[in-house]
Amino acid sequence: MNPVSKLSGSVAKEMIDLLGAECFLTSLADREAYSWDNTGYRMLPDAVALANNQDQVCGVLRLCTEHHIPVTPRGAGTGNVGGSLPVQGGIVLSLQRLNRILEVSVPDRYVVVETGVVNADLQSKLKEYALFWPPDPSSSRACSIGGNIAMCSAGPGAVRWGVTRDWVLGLDAVLMDGSTLRTGGRTTKGVVGLDLTRLLTGSEGTLAVITRAVLKVASLPEQRYLSRVSFSSVEQATAAVVQLLSSPVLPSAIEFLDGTALDLLRRETSLDIPGEARAMLLLEVAGGAHGLKELANDMIEKIKRFNPLSCSPPVDGPEAVMVWEARSALAPILKKLAPKRINEDVVVPVSRLPSLMDGLQGISKESGIPIINFGHAGNGNIHVNLLVDPKDQPTMSRVPGVLDRLFRLVLDLDGSLSGEHGVGTQKRDYIAWELDANCLNLQREIKNIFDPLGLLNPGKVWPARTITA
Amino acid sequence: MNPVSKLSGSVAKEMIDLLGAECFLTSLADREAYSWDNTGYRMLPDAVALANNQDQVCGVLRLCTEHHIPVTPRGAGTGNVGGSLPVQGGIVLSLQRLNRILEVSVPDRYVVVETGVVNADLQSKLKEYALFWPPDPSSSRACSIGGNIAMCSAGPGAVRWGVTRDWVLGLDAVLMDGSTLRTGGRTTKGVVGLDLTRLLTGSEGTLAVITRAVLKVASLPEQRYLSRVSFSSVEQATAAVVQLLSSPVLPSAIEFLDGTALDLLRRETSLDIPGEARAMLLLEVAGGAHGLKELANDMIEKIKRFNPLSCSPPVDGPEAVMVWEARSALAPILKKLAPKRINEDVVVPVSRLPSLMDGLQGISKESGIPIINFGHAGNGNIHVNLLVDPKDQPTMSRVPGVLDRLFRLVLDLDGSLSGEHGVGTQKRDYIAWELDANCLNLQREIKNIFDPLGLLNPGKVWPARTITA
Repeated sequence: MNPVSKLSGSVAKEMIDLLGAECFLTSLADREAYSWDNTGYRMLPDAVALANNQDQVCGVLRLCTEHHIPVTPRGAGTGNVGGSLPVQGGIVLSLQRLNRILEVSVPDRYVVVETGVVNADLQSKLKEYALFWPPDPSSSRACSIGGNIAMCSAGPGAVRWGVTRDWVLGLDAVLMDGSTLRTGGRTTKGVVGLDLTRLLTGSEGTLAVITRAVLKVASLPEQRYLSRVSFSSVEQATAAVVQLLSSPVLPSAIEFLDGTALDLLRRETSLDIPGEARAMLLLEVAGGAHGLKELANDMIEKIKRFNPLSCSPPVDGPEAVMVWEARSALAPILKKLAPKRINEDVVVPVSRLPSLMDGLQGISKESGIPIINFGHAGNGNIHVNLLVDPKDQPTMSRVPGVLDRLFRLVLDLDGSLSGEHGVGTQKRDYIAWELDANCLNLQREIKNIFDPLGLLNPGKVWPARTITA
Repeated sequence: MNPVSKLSGSVAKEMIDLLGAECFLTSLADREAYSWDNTGYRMLPDAVALANNQDQVCGVLRLCTEHHIPVTPRGAGTGNVGGSLPVQGGIVLSLQRLNRILEVSVPDRYVVVETGVVNADLQSKLKEYALFWPPDPSSSRACSIGGNIAMCSAGPGAVRWGVTRDWVLGLDAVLMDGSTLRTGGRTTKGVVGLDLTRLLTGSEGTLAVITRAVLKVASLPEQRYLSRVSFSSVEQATAAVVQLLSSPVLPSAIEFLDGTALDLLRRETSLDIPGEARAMLLLEVAGGAHGLKELANDMIEKIKRFNPLSCSPPVDGPEAVMVWEARSALAPILKKLAPKRINEDVVVPVSRLPSLMDGLQGISKESGIPIINFGHAGNGNIHVNLLVDPKDQPTMSRVPGVLDRLFRLVLDLDGSLSGEHGVGTQKRDYIAWELDANCLNLQREIKNIFDPLGLLNPGKVWPARTITA
C-alpha cells in the first residue's frame, strides 16, 4: 500500500471542482478511514470522493474513465468479502451522503431511497407505516441499502421472506462513462426486456454504481415470538430443522448455534443455556397476534420427538431482544477466541445440513483448527468460522487445504460457496469451482459490456485467470 | 408465409439423423400445427424439431448455428405476444417432450423439472406433497414451465406470492453453439457471480434454450375463501383495491372486472351479478383453515365503506371453482363480442388504478372503440381489451393511435407496458418508450453475447431500429 496519493494534481483539481474540497479527501487519515471492511484487511485508496447526488456520481465516474483511474464504490464498508476495498488503489466513491428516503407509498407497497440510506434508518421510517423491508443482515444498524443491493444481502428472515433480490423493484444506476440508466419500475409486476434490475442486484458494484432504488416492502408483523430449543447433539438439531422445513408454516427465523458457539455465549452473556447442550435452535414465528403463540407452541411440540434437552417457552419483547442481541454479538465476540477468524458463509440444501455438519466436524478434527458454526439453518446457510492465529505458521499453512476441503464438501452437497456475503476478493479464486465455463465466460463478457476498461471495482468476483477444479 | 420448406435436404438429413424421422417434421400439416400462438397470428416454420432430451437440444442448436438457420424455441404455444412464432421461418424447436418431473424435495422446498412439463401437471404432482408452485397463469392447464420461465409469467396469486422470477432457483440451458450452462442451484440463498438465473427468466427465449429448472415451491394453503363484491362504479372498486393493499394481510387474489365484462358474464354464465353493477372484485384469502373465514369477513367489512352494491359471503369448494371458471372463461368468450380483441396487459402502481381506469374510459369514448378491462388489480395489472373488426377499416386505422395513447397513459402513471405477457413481436416497437437508451443498448449487447449470429428467436423483444418517443 502506498501512503502517498498517486493522483495527479490536475485530476485532483477537477475532482475538487466537481465535489468541493470538503468532499474530495486525500489526506492519509481520511484515506485510511475508507480503507477497511469487515474482512480485517486494509487497502489504501489514493483519494476518497464523497458524492452528494447522482450528478456527482456521474461526474466522478466520467473523470475516472477519462483518466483511467480505478474506482471502488462504497456503502458503509460492512461487507465480509473485500467488496468495497480499493485493491488497485484509485478512488473510493462513497455513497454515504446519498441518504434520503424519497417516497413511501403504502398502497403501492414500495419505498424509494437513495442507496446510502442505512438499513436500520429505513426500517425506522417504514415502521411509522407498519411496513418493513425484509432483508435483515446482522449489520443492519450500520450497513447501507446500496451495499445490501450490491451484495444481495440477507439475514435470518430469509427463510420466510427471501433475499434482497426479491425486494427490489427498480434501480437508478450510473455507468463508467457517466451516463445513467433506470431499470425496472414502481410496479410489482413487469416483464419488458431483460431483467437488468436483478442483474445489478448482487453484482457487487462491478457493473454500475447504484444511486437510487425502488424497494418492495411488506407489512410489519404485529407480533413475533422466539423460542430456544437446545439439544445434546448437532445431529438432533439439524434433523429438527429438516422437519420444520417440511411443515406448512414457515418460521420467520431458524437460527442454529453449535456447541462451541454456546460455550462462548455461556461465558460472555447471561443467556441461560443447559450445560450439556451441544446445539441450539432459535425459532421465531411472526404474524398477526391472534393465535401466534399457539403456533409457536405447536412448533415446539413437533420438535419434541427429536429429544431436545430444553425448550424455552415462546417469548417476545425485551426477553426476545436479549436473545437476538446475544446471537448478533456472536461474530464480534468470536474475535476474542483467536487472533483471526476466517468466516465462510456456505449454503447447502436444508436436507444436507446433517451431512455438512458431519463433514465440518471431520475437517476440524483432522486439521486441528477449531471451527465454530452458526447461522441461518432455515436456508441451509451456515457461517463456518475457522479460528486461527496468523503468527502460528504451521496452522496457517493448513488453512488453504481446509478451505479447499470445505468448499469441495459444500459443492458435493449441491450447495454454494456463499449464501449472502458474496465473492469479492475473498472467494474469487474459487468461483470456477462452482460456476461452469459458460457461466464464467458470459459473466466476464457482461462485465466487459458495462465496464469495458475494467475500472469499476476491479479485482473482484472473477479470478484473474480461470482455475480449473 | 412460405408453404414450402426452405431447408435443404442435407440439413434435413442431419436433423433426422439426430432426432429420428418422427421428431423432425416437415409436412405442411405438421408445420401448421406449430405455427400459432394466442395472438391469433400464424407464422409457418420450415420444419419442427421435437427434442427428447437436452443432448438433442444441443444438437439442434449446433446444426442451426452451423447452417445459419433461425430457431424459435416453443413450449405450449399459449403466449400472448408472439414469443413462440417463427417470424423468420427456420426451425421451431419444441420442448414439449422434455416433460419429466425429476425430483421433489419437501424439506428443501424445491422441485426439479424438465421445462416441457405443463404447469397444471406440476401442480398435481406437488399437491401430493401439500406443495405448489405459485405462478398461476390462466393458461395453466396448457402452458409449460419453460414458457412460464421464458416470459416470467404470473397470475392472480402474484399479489401475494410474486411472479415466476421469485420461484426459480436454478436453470440448465443450451447456447446457440450447442454448449450448456447451469445457473443458480438448489439452495434458497446463493450469491456467487452475476444472477444469470434471473437474466434468463423473462428473456423470452432470446438468450438460450432452457431445458431444466430447479423451482422453489411453497406450502399449499389448507383453505381458500372467495368473495365477490360488486360496485355501481369503477371508481369505488379501484378505491377499495387501494384500501385493501394498504392493509396488513394480503389476499391471495384481488381480481377486477369492469361493467362490460360483467355484462358478458351475466349473458354467458350463470353467475349471479346485480343488474346495476358496473364493477366487481373477486377477493380470495388463503391459508390455514383456522380463522380464515373470519379474515375474509373482516376484509369485506373494510370494503363496506366504499358502498358496494353487494357482498357475497366467502365461499369455498365448488362454488368458488364456479366463479374462478367464469373469470377464466372471460378471455375466450370475449372473442364472441368482436371478430378481434387486442389484449394489452398493462400495469401501474395500485394507487394509480383509478387514474388508469379513468383514462381508459376517455380513450374508449373518444376513439369509439369498445374497451373491456379486467385483471389482477392487486398488482395494478389490467388486461385492456380493444374489441375491433379487422374488416372495419376506419376503426382499424384508429387502433395504432389508441395504443399509443394507452401506452403513454400507462407510462405517465409510472407503469409498464407489460405486467406478465412480455414483449415478443407485439410490443417490440414500443419498448423504447419504456426503457432508456442505456437499458436498450445493454440488453442488445447482452443478447449479442449469448447469440452473436442473431439466430435464436429472432425478431422478438427489441425493435429493428430504436424508436424515440
